Formats: sequence, C-alpha cells, structure tokens
Amino acid sequence: MSKRNAFYAQSGGVTAVINASACGVIETARRHPDRIGKIFAGRNGIIGALTEDLIDTGQESDLAIAALRHTPSGAFGSCRYKLKGLDENKAQYERLIEVFKAHDIGYFFYNGGGDSQDTAYKVSQLGERLGYPITCIGVPKTVDNDLPITDNCPGFGSVAKYIAVSTREASFDVASMCATSTRLFVLEAMGRHAGWIAAAGALAADEKHDIPLLILFPEVTFEPAKFLAAVDAKVKAYGYCSVVVSEGVKGVDGKFLAESGVKDAFGHAQLGGAAPVIANLVKDSLGYKYHWAVADYLQRAARHIASRTDVEQAYALGKAAVELALEGHNAIMPTIVRVSDSPYQWKIGYAKLADVANVEKKMPSEFISEDGFGITPACRTYLQALIEGEDYPPYRNGLPDYVNLKNAPVEKKLAASFSI
Amino acid sequence: MSKRNAFYAQSGGVTAVINASACGVIETARRHPDRIGKIFAGRNGIIGALTEDLIDTGQESDLAIAALRHTPSGAFGSCRYKLKGLDENKAQYERLIEVFKAHDIGYFFYNGGGDSQDTAYKVSQLGERLGYPITCIGVPKTVDNDLPITDNCPGFGSVAKYIAVSTREASFDVASMCATSTRLFVLEAMGRHAGWIAAAGALAADEKHDIPLLILFPEVTFEPAKFLAAVDAKVKAYGYCSVVVSEGVKGVDGKFLAESGVKDAFGHAQLGGAAPVIANLVKDSLGYKYHWAVADYLQRAARHIASRTDVEQAYALGKAAVELALEGHNAIMPTIVRVSDSPYQWKIGYAKLADVANVEKKMPSEFISEDGFGITPACRTYLQALIEGEDYPPYRNGLPDYVNLKNAPVEKKLAASFSI
Repeated sequence: MSKRNAFYAQSGGVTAVINASACGVIETARRHPDRIGKIFAGRNGIIGALTEDLIDTGQESDLAIAALRHTPSGAFGSCRYKLKGLDENKAQYERLIEVFKAHDIGYFFYNGGGDSQDTAYKVSQLGERLGYPITCIGVPKTVDNDLPITDNCPGFGSVAKYIAVSTREASFDVASMCATSTRLFVLEAMGRHAGWIAAAGALAADEKHDIPLLILFPEVTFEPAKFLAAVDAKVKAYGYCSVVVSEGVKGVDGKFLAESGVKDAFGHAQLGGAAPVIANLVKDSLGYKYHWAVADYLQRAARHIASRTDVEQAYALGKAAVELALEGHNAIMPTIVRVSDSPYQWKIGYAKLADVANVEKKMPSEFISEDGFGITPACRTYLQALIEGEDYPPYRNGLPDYVNLKNAPVEKKLAASFSI
Repeated sequence: MSKRNAFYAQSGGVTAVINASACGVIETARRHPDRIGKIFAGRNGIIGALTEDLIDTGQESDLAIAALRHTPSGAFGSCRYKLKGLDENKAQYERLIEVFKAHDIGYFFYNGGGDSQDTAYKVSQLGERLGYPITCIGVPKTVDNDLPITDNCPGFGSVAKYIAVSTREASFDVASMCATSTRLFVLEAMGRHAGWIAAAGALAADEKHDIPLLILFPEVTFEPAKFLAAVDAKVKAYGYCSVVVSEGVKGVDGKFLAESGVKDAFGHAQLGGAAPVIANLVKDSLGYKYHWAVADYLQRAARHIASRTDVEQAYALGKAAVELALEGHNAIMPTIVRVSDSPYQWKIGYAKLADVANVEKKMPSEFISEDGFGITPACRTYLQALIEGEDYPPYRNGLPDYVNLKNAPVEKKLAASFSI
C-alpha cells in the first residue's frame, strides 16, 4: 500500500481528555511511518481543512505529544462548525478535496460529538460520491455522553468525576455550617439536553457518606411545589440539602429555568444560570439561607481530577482509530464496549458513522428514580465504573504543567482562499 | 501540674484544611495524657460550649482522627456566632464558666478567623477578669487570608491553588474555542473585603503559560470603560480573555456589583453573582460571547486539590497550639513566620490574641499592578510559596474517602439549658 498523509482535528466543546485521544492518534500514526507520512492537524477543526490552515505536528517532539495525554482543552483549536449536506453546499466538499489533494491527505480523523461525527460521515462521502480516495474515522468525544452505540463518551467520565467530587466536598462544607448558616447548596452542572452530568452528582452519596441530595434532570419537568416539599423534607431530616441542577432543566412552560426572563440593573436580559433561580425560589418559599455555584467550563476542563478510566479510554480510542484505518476500515467510529460492570471491563469495538451521526442517546428513564430527584441502582452501576481511578498531571510551581504546542503552520499550496 | 480536660471548636466559614488543624490539636493532645485528660469538641463552635453540647473525641479511633487531615469542612460543626463583650452580656461568660467547671475544662482551643480570634480573646478574659483558670489558644484559619501578624492563614493556600488551577484549565479551554465560540471567560472568586483569592488567579499565567488575564480586586473601584478597554485589548491580541472577579468588587457607587439590583422573572431580588454582571456588560458593550462560573463553596471545600504547604501548616498550627498551651502560654495564637521566599521556608511563631482580634490584614497596595488588573512580582513571590505541593486524599470508588466522625455527645451535667 502506498504511504499517504493524515489529517486530525478536534471539534465541538473541548474536554479534559480530548487531547489524550489526539495523543493516541499521533503516537500510533508515528509508529507506522511506512503507511502514514506526515500527520497534519486542522487548526480549529474542519475550518483548518477548509481554509488550508494545517498544523505540522511533525514539529512537535515525542515529549510534547506525550504531554497531550495530561493536558485538557483542544491543543489544535476546536470549532463549532457543521458542514452542510453535499447537495446543499458542494463547494465545501470540492474545497476539501482540493486541500486534501494538495497535501496528499489519505486519512481523516475527526474527534468530536454528534455534530462532529456527522461532519466525519459527510467527509467520508468524498470517497463514495466524489471519488476522492480517503479513509475517514471518527473519534468519539463529548462530555454530554450522548453518542449512540458506544458504552460512554470520552470526556464524560472526567466531568462526572468532577461533579461527584465537588458535590461531596460542598456537601461536607454545608453540613458543617447548617446549624447557624447555609442550609441549601445548589450546584449547576452542564447538560442542555440530557441529565448524564447532573446524575453523576448522586455518586457523592454512598453507603459511607449519607448526603441529602436532590438531582434536577432536563428529562423531568420542574415542578416547584414538589421540589420545595422535597427540599424541606431533606432540611428537616438532615439540617441541610444539596441540589445538583442540570442547566437544561425546564419548567412546565417548556422554557429553560436559566432563561426565565432574568434582567440585571442595566436592563441586560438573561444573565443565565439555573442555580440562582432554584436557590432564590427556595429562599423565597422556605426562607433557607443558600449558596450556589455554577461550574461551567471548570467542570469540563478539570484535567487535575480526571478519571483514569476516561483518560485510558480516550487514548485507546485515538489509537484504535489509526489501527482501524490501517486495517482498511472506513467510515466508522471506534466505540467502548462494556464487557462487565464490576470489575469494570471494556474493550474497543466500532460503529458505522452512518449509524452514529445525528443520533442522540438520552438518559434511559429506568436510570431516574421514581420521584424524579435521584438515580436508580442501575444508573449508579453504570456511572460508577466511569469515574474510577485518578490520573494526576505533573505539577510545576504548584500548578499542573500543561503543554502548549508550537502549532507551526504548514505552507499553503493553494492560491485560492476559502471563506467560512 | 494537674491534669485537666481540653475543649476544641471550629468557627466561621470552614475550609479544605481546618480539619487538618483539628487533627494536629487532637493527635498532639493525645500524646500528653499526663497533662490533658479528655478532649472535648464543641458541636457547632462556641455554641456547643454555651449549650453544653460537647462531643467526646475519645470515642474516635486514631485512624478516624488521622483521616481528619485529608477531610475538608468542619468535622464537629462550625458556627457564625460572635460573643458579646463581657460587660454587654455577662450571662454568656458565666454560662461558659459553668460548663467549663462542670467538665473540668482547663484548655480552650478555638479554630477560626478574625471574629473567632475575638471570641478566643474574650474567653481568655474568663481567667483574667472572672478568675476561672483557663488556658486559651487561638488556631488561625480563614480562606480570606486577612489575619494580621501571621504570614498567611491556613485555608487560603488551598483555595488559592484551586483558583489558580481552575483559571489555568478554563483558560486552556477558552483558548481552544475562541476562533468560533467563547471569547470571554469570567470566574468569580470569594473575598468580600480583600482580593487575596482573586489575586491567586494570576498564578495561572507564568513564563511557560502565556494567558491573557484580568483580575478584578475589591481594593480597586470597578470602572466599566477602563475594564472594557482592557478586555478588548486582550481579545484583539490573544483571541480571548479570562477574568477573575472577586465577589467583593464594587462600582463607583460603592455598591457590590453582585448586588446591582438583579431581579428574576419571579420578581426575586438579588440573585447575586458578580461574574454574570461582568460577563453581560462585556457582551452588551463589545459583543463577545461569554461563559462564566461561580465557584462558591467548591473553592474552599476542594480538599482534592489542596496545597501541601497549606495542609502542613494547618496541621503544624494545631500541634503548636497544644504545645504552646503546655509550655504555659496563654491568650495567644500560633502564627506562620516566613523565613525565606525561595525555597519557601517557614517556622511557627505566635502572637497575642489581643493583637489579632478584630484586626483585618488587607492586600498591600504594592501587591496590585499599576493598571489595577494584575499582581506585582512581589505578590507572585508571596503567593507562589503558598500553593506549592499536592496532598491528595485517599480515594474509594473513584471519590475522595472523607471521614465522618461519630460525634458522640458527652452526657450533660447541668440542669439548666441556655438559649442562644
């Protein structure tokens, strides 16, 4: 087989471990110099391909690439940009072919969530429909954990661990203060469409840690009276209550709580934040002193408390993407297959991109407890495995020593530029 | 010398390492059974003393006490409760003497910040002014870092590390996304009166990590136009900007930004949060997409990312409190004395409670850079030492294995109850 160059890019919201997948792709590709020539990265995802803004990863030392494994964020830049359908915007696809031809790119690795797997799927059509020979492999990534087929998505395990650890720690704090101070703590977690991340807050409590917790899922319509009664019961029993609210929780009117017409003194609309809305509702109705936190990017960037399971899977999926490509697979995405729950064992499988693109995996209803405020034992078993193990980054001067790559540009070969 | 019992209690906002001080006090007291009999803890601080609600720490195993070193929050319950002056409310002091006499308490260790050291100082007057023989030692603690004389306050180093790590991680995240998405990230840090915690955000950037950062201190009046110009310059130079805003930042009208008349759709006033106010101001004026986080209790409870220096100092101060008491000192608080900056070396000293009570140490103006948005090299040197080292707690099932004590009550000996 002839030797061709590879293109790798990161897409969508970044995570604590997407760079571990990049590390898996690049380290594995470097081990096959007979089949893979240069390894280019797209600056800011697919945009880098469209604008011929390629990064020469060959300029990075083995040490720098290895450091990607412990560095959060997207080292090559990510993007929120979705390709149109081939029939809607053929120019985009013709441009991709031009760029790929110019740089002899025969392997396309695209690392992202649902939208990004759709992009990967569309790029794979370059081969089938436009006759440009390219091997196209998706690499899964999303803190939202909403990709189908795969047991879970890299990025999710670490954000789940962050939320579980933070909920436990803040609950310990509130428990100490509740006699004379705060009685309600509300933590807002990411998850606009699915409650996976908020659900992980429930892991804060276990048989050794009896913590009064309520989880608010986007899958469950928020009913103020029912919620207030539940809070009051917890406070009366424990002296305090912790709430983990998903940013995606909606009221009976179908609107996000976070968007309930909040305005500040300057008249600015929508400050956002479901947590302050929830906290204020409790204060107003039950009179309990509250504190609230919105973790936002801290949760998905928290490589310092990443799940070792998550890091290992992220790396393994990057590695598998290259190996599957070299085995001749095309238009697929490697997946995590759960072999057993306890001990958690997993292996690599794969799914067709056509089956993955634009399919959203919701939290199964049997994972949410009957009262709507907690998780079932089945959900606990599922989640528990994903936060197992720690994988601390190296530290320097008291801070994680994350790597900044050189990201040297590859010389452009095309005369024409392309507008995004 | 006769053998007497000891009383230890925790007061004010809890921290990631106040239990490490408790560990230092109890482990050290246990090593002196000839001088110290039982070691009682007050349930919820001084309230436990007033209401004769004592905890028998003798029921806790050595292992459980040792686990306090890695457990955040206040294991015996803390309180926000300040004693009145002896002349204002003599009944409180007479009650304390009754309780102390009933339980033969001769040592009083009070672990807290400025208000709590005031309580410790007032309790020490039981001896001088009311003739009840008691040795009274304060143990410093406060994330606000505002106690005088001591180089720093246990709890601060860990919250500083949390804010520095989180700022670095979130900035990496935003840097990856800024080409097509978020350009401004705002993290709100604690510190109603002093900017110590927000200042620590500046450590996120160093000679290896060029991060565009602006810090908003409570010491510097917030001027929107100047701030917006600074944000715009950073975004134009780097593509994004990270802001760490202290909750205590005030506008030219002298009001907290967080209290600028925010109302939600239900008409609830003051949702709080300086971060959303700042973020919205930028969006409205410059049009940049933003994200914001409010760390709230997560920052002070984050034992999982505690500073090793902080843990060691917290323990050492608890230990020193007992040793100083046994050496015959009274009405003092052990302190941290900085011996050298680099390498950071420190030793234990002490200060009179009379000199500590109600004195607030502000951030020196020479620690804030001329433009008001950053720290000076002197401040960096000061802060750097305090976040050095990691001290990970043990994990179980993917989560920190924090201890819950039995907190068995001591049988009451007094007939009368006491209303708080």
